[in-house]
Amino acid sequence: MEDFIFGTTSLTDQVVKEHQETLRGLWHGHRIEPLDPLPGQPVRLHLRVGSQITAQGVWCYYTVDGREPKGRDGIATVGMAVPLRRVSIHWEDLVWNYVEEWEGEIPGQPEGTLVRYILEAGGQYASGGEGSTTDTPFFAYSVDRWTVPDWARDAVIYHILLDRFYPGDGHEFIPTDDLEEIMGGTLAGVRQKLPYLRELGFNCIWLSPISASPSYHRYDATDYYRVAEALGTNEDLHELVTQAHNYGMRIILDFVANHASHQHPFFRAAQADRQSPYYSWYTFERWPDEYKAFFGVKEVPQFNLEHPPARQYMLEVARYWMREHGVDGYRLDYALGPSRNFWTDFRRAVRSVRSDGFTFAEAVAPPAMLRTFEGRLDGCLDFIWCETARQAFATGQQTMADFERFLQRHESYFGHGLILLTFLDNHDMNRFLWMAGGDKRRLRVAAACQFTLSQPPIVYYGTEVGLSQSADCRPYLHHARLPMIWDERQDRELLVWYRRLCAARHRHPALRRGDRVPIISDGQSGLLVYRKVKDDDSCLVILHAAEGKLQADLPLTSGAYYDLLSDREYKVNRNSLRLTLEPWTAAILVQTH
Amino acid sequence: MEDFIFGTTSLTDQVVKEHQETLRGLWHGHRIEPLDPLPGQPVRLHLRVGSQITAQGVWCYYTVDGREPKGRDGIATVGMAVPLRRVSIHWEDLVWNYVEEWEGEIPGQPEGTLVRYILEAGGQYASGGEGSTTDTPFFAYSVDRWTVPDWARDAVIYHILLDRFYPGDGHEFIPTDDLEEIMGGTLAGVRQKLPYLRELGFNCIWLSPISASPSYHRYDATDYYRVAEALGTNEDLHELVTQAHNYGMRIILDFVANHASHQHPFFRAAQADRQSPYYSWYTFERWPDEYKAFFGVKEVPQFNLEHPPARQYMLEVARYWMREHGVDGYRLDYALGPSRNFWTDFRRAVRSVRSDGFTFAEAVAPPAMLRTFEGRLDGCLDFIWCETARQAFATGQQTMADFERFLQRHESYFGHGLILLTFLDNHDMNRFLWMAGGDKRRLRVAAACQFTLSQPPIVYYGTEVGLSQSADCRPYLHHARLPMIWDERQDRELLVWYRRLCAARHRHPALRRGDRVPIISDGQSGLLVYRKVKDDDSCLVILHAAEGKLQADLPLTSGAYYDLLSDREYKVNRNSLRLTLEPWTAAILVQTH
Repeated sequence: MEDFIFGTTSLTDQVVKEHQETLRGLWHGHRIEPLDPLPGQPVRLHLRVGSQITAQGVWCYYTVDGREPKGRDGIATVGMAVPLRRVSIHWEDLVWNYVEEWEGEIPGQPEGTLVRYILEAGGQYASGGEGSTTDTPFFAYSVDRWTVPDWARDAVIYHILLDRFYPGDGHEFIPTDDLEEIMGGTLAGVRQKLPYLRELGFNCIWLSPISASPSYHRYDATDYYRVAEALGTNEDLHELVTQAHNYGMRIILDFVANHASHQHPFFRAAQADRQSPYYSWYTFERWPDEYKAFFGVKEVPQFNLEHPPARQYMLEVARYWMREHGVDGYRLDYALGPSRNFWTDFRRAVRSVRSDGFTFAEAVAPPAMLRTFEGRLDGCLDFIWCETARQAFATGQQTMADFERFLQRHESYFGHGLILLTFLDNHDMNRFLWMAGGDKRRLRVAAACQFTLSQPPIVYYGTEVGLSQSADCRPYLHHARLPMIWDERQDRELLVWYRRLCAARHRHPALRRGDRVPIISDGQSGLLVYRKVKDDDSCLVILHAAEGKLQADLPLTSGAYYDLLSDREYKVNRNSLRLTLEPWTAAILVQTH
Repeated sequence: MEDFIFGTTSLTDQVVKEHQETLRGLWHGHRIEPLDPLPGQPVRLHLRVGSQITAQGVWCYYTVDGREPKGRDGIATVGMAVPLRRVSIHWEDLVWNYVEEWEGEIPGQPEGTLVRYILEAGGQYASGGEGSTTDTPFFAYSVDRWTVPDWARDAVIYHILLDRFYPGDGHEFIPTDDLEEIMGGTLAGVRQKLPYLRELGFNCIWLSPISASPSYHRYDATDYYRVAEALGTNEDLHELVTQAHNYGMRIILDFVANHASHQHPFFRAAQADRQSPYYSWYTFERWPDEYKAFFGVKEVPQFNLEHPPARQYMLEVARYWMREHGVDGYRLDYALGPSRNFWTDFRRAVRSVRSDGFTFAEAVAPPAMLRTFEGRLDGCLDFIWCETARQAFATGQQTMADFERFLQRHESYFGHGLILLTFLDNHDMNRFLWMAGGDKRRLRVAAACQFTLSQPPIVYYGTEVGLSQSADCRPYLHHARLPMIWDERQDRELLVWYRRLCAARHRHPALRRGDRVPIISDGQSGLLVYRKVKDDDSCLVILHAAEGKLQADLPLTSGAYYDLLSDREYKVNRNSLRLTLEPWTAAILVQTH
């Protein structure tokens, strides 16, 4: 079965086209060093002057007071100017021409400074919108000592699509065959299921959008300040957050800054009257009916978040739910839409309300792009891990040798300043179990891998009880959004597996924060073994991702071991631990003496 | 009209395919620093460990005595071993995966050392054959103080296709309509035309292959040691060289190491008997009828020059013509065929006979590939300059602004250690004049550019008298190889133009060796102006590559100027030199006082 997680992004033709564009024009690509500057640290900027650009001089204009810098030919009219210098020329076959690399440096700034900058060569400006739908020339970074919130590193996250989770005690899902109808999940329902989730071992919940909206999924708000009626009230959210906090659990909201419903009053006003102050909140290509919209879908017009009132409005929304209702963080929908200039402001807004507010991006983009979010947000959803894990465990397109090679490089590529949240599936793709042809053994092994890596795992609602789908998500996405199973159809064995994974993770810092030491990765037998180590804590993770029984002898010096997932015990014999592994199984061994 | 100089090499699909290959496997790409190591200099090696390769360790094995190194897992069985270390990981969209870069260092070696090396990771060896048809794992470099021969930098080269140049006094070309028939050019004919070439101003001649061969072009030898009967005798060559030397002119032979005729006795022997010693001189995929051949053409089987006797034979051929007949250098046909390992030996063989022997490659390859010939050969034919100049001057696909940007980057990209010989056309492509729709004004401007750059210019026979063709070269290459014009159809005006260009170049070191200072490059008006400067010598080159009269005012402080191409004089008036430029014209101004 074809997976299609990255859409066209990963297709060679599209990749080539985008590379050619960056090789022809002025391309910055958010390449600054360091990615997350500390107070006083100078920042080196990289700019590519592509094959079609003649540059005698290249300039950076920057401000340190939040204003938008302006300048031309080395003269700053707002802010200051620094020159870049050419550091290399190379040949690029893809555009069959030469390109140049230039560098410059913005001096170190005091703590708390917001630096905005633009890059100019001969009257042309580098676009800040790579991978985004905005074409603002503005880049930005924040000079601070912020780090990823500590609690986020220990989070075990449950991902809820609200309409499909739980209608509340005494209520049933509204029966319908139409997957685009409202089925009745509520915030009160989530509150009532907090004990279920806590008992399973989740300590964090990501809720799908709560805002008033015409749709069941609510990624198209009509009121950013009001909970959708069918979900409950703002007070219901408040109660849910309070109750979660009492249980030691965190609540993360899905935040859609990029676009809202075309029925949103602002958009209606803009469409009704060109003189409306809201006209500039959007980008009309031809008023009133042609405008920038999320993937061109007219029902969800995009905001122009470079327009200061629109930006300020959205930042205040972010502050509001944290300040007034105590939410702990935001999952940022379609983060490639708004500019990094916007996200830099966004995180500053969040941190102004909560010093441990957690922000992470949904950016369906390759690692090179994700890395540029470091210093701007706390984390990113790890789509490439998701794709690779599905290939390794669901569809068998990667061997364990391939997967281990990927893991090592992936872990080395990213710095500590950006959390990469792992997930096996979400509401926008086929469920893992569907991709695995319903084989729950594969899901168990994949989950064992996910829960033993040092990134916060996310579990999509229902995965823990074997919820799958009845038809492929292409072209009808909604198949991955069936209502939660609450009755005897729940797979209890799977539930126990997830409970054990959560428990193991909470008990062992090595699992959630440890270094990973590869031991075996066998392309033939499907055996993957690694050790996780943190201070005195150590766990041995054994994944057998293949059919057939496998006998494995692990070179261990002595002692006895205990499998956290099966309760079985093992003894080392003659410097070797002999394991007889069933097809598609996993173990997490800890030494007992 | 579509030009097609690089064949499929420059097509995006092909580029992508080749990049993907280098991104998946073990790729060295001849990336050493420095490219041309001096005695005592350590050499840094770069190796890419691609997406499909798992490498715990990477090793280089090398010898300093000419032997082929051998080793595995860090143990050298022939030669010495040095480890490489991983220096970076990056993400590559084109293979949608990570790749690693590794580096290592071979210690400095005494003068005269031939270093051969291989690169290994987990039992796999990096191929040395990028862009070549060989798959040898051997790389090599020579540790020496050799530089490009001084005379080569001053060479003005006339390129002769022997069969089509001159049948000799008292002989006519053999009349035929078949362009693949022999037409009767001879070595004696060339000798008789030395005065013609000397008077024009050429000081160097590149002769097409002289060897016995079944074809008129003779790129398919049947005897490397004997001049083709139709051309004359070995003594004729000797006389030609002697006479040329008397005139202060140099003779360069076309050297075809990669392949020869299937009628060559060695190949006949190999095909007749698998036990023949010549069997290993070729690469039989399935004896006797399937074997590696030049672009798969059965009539020209490729030598296996990694086989020591074959290599030694070819090196001796190179030494022979220099030693016994005094030729001054070799133009190396299809240099991407044989390995760089071979060419390193080749240059050493040439230099063992003549310390100023000149060797340059025909490598139809982009600059990044050409650059890896530095230190291995003295120069390369500059196909990318050719393509770009034709786009700028023949077909108008590039403006003067584009062309100037290209020139600047091109000049910066290459070091001084590699000569890049310029040409507007050759025997394997449409003549410039044909591409320019017969517009000789365009040829004159292009030639003026070519003759004022600091690289040796090559002129394909007949260009100087307006020889063109009667049909396109695709698919029938032979159209670009019509017989030379010796009668009244010669374009005398063009001839004078070339004579003046040669004379200007010889008179002014600034033109042939100077630095180029860009002054004007105008995408609209088609004006390109640059200054060439060498010590006290200075020339102002003015190219007007457009229709319409153009008035140009050059900012010059004072004095009077003289145009070497028209004999016209100009005076500076009020800090400006006013030029009225006819459509498609060129001038080379020198200050008279």
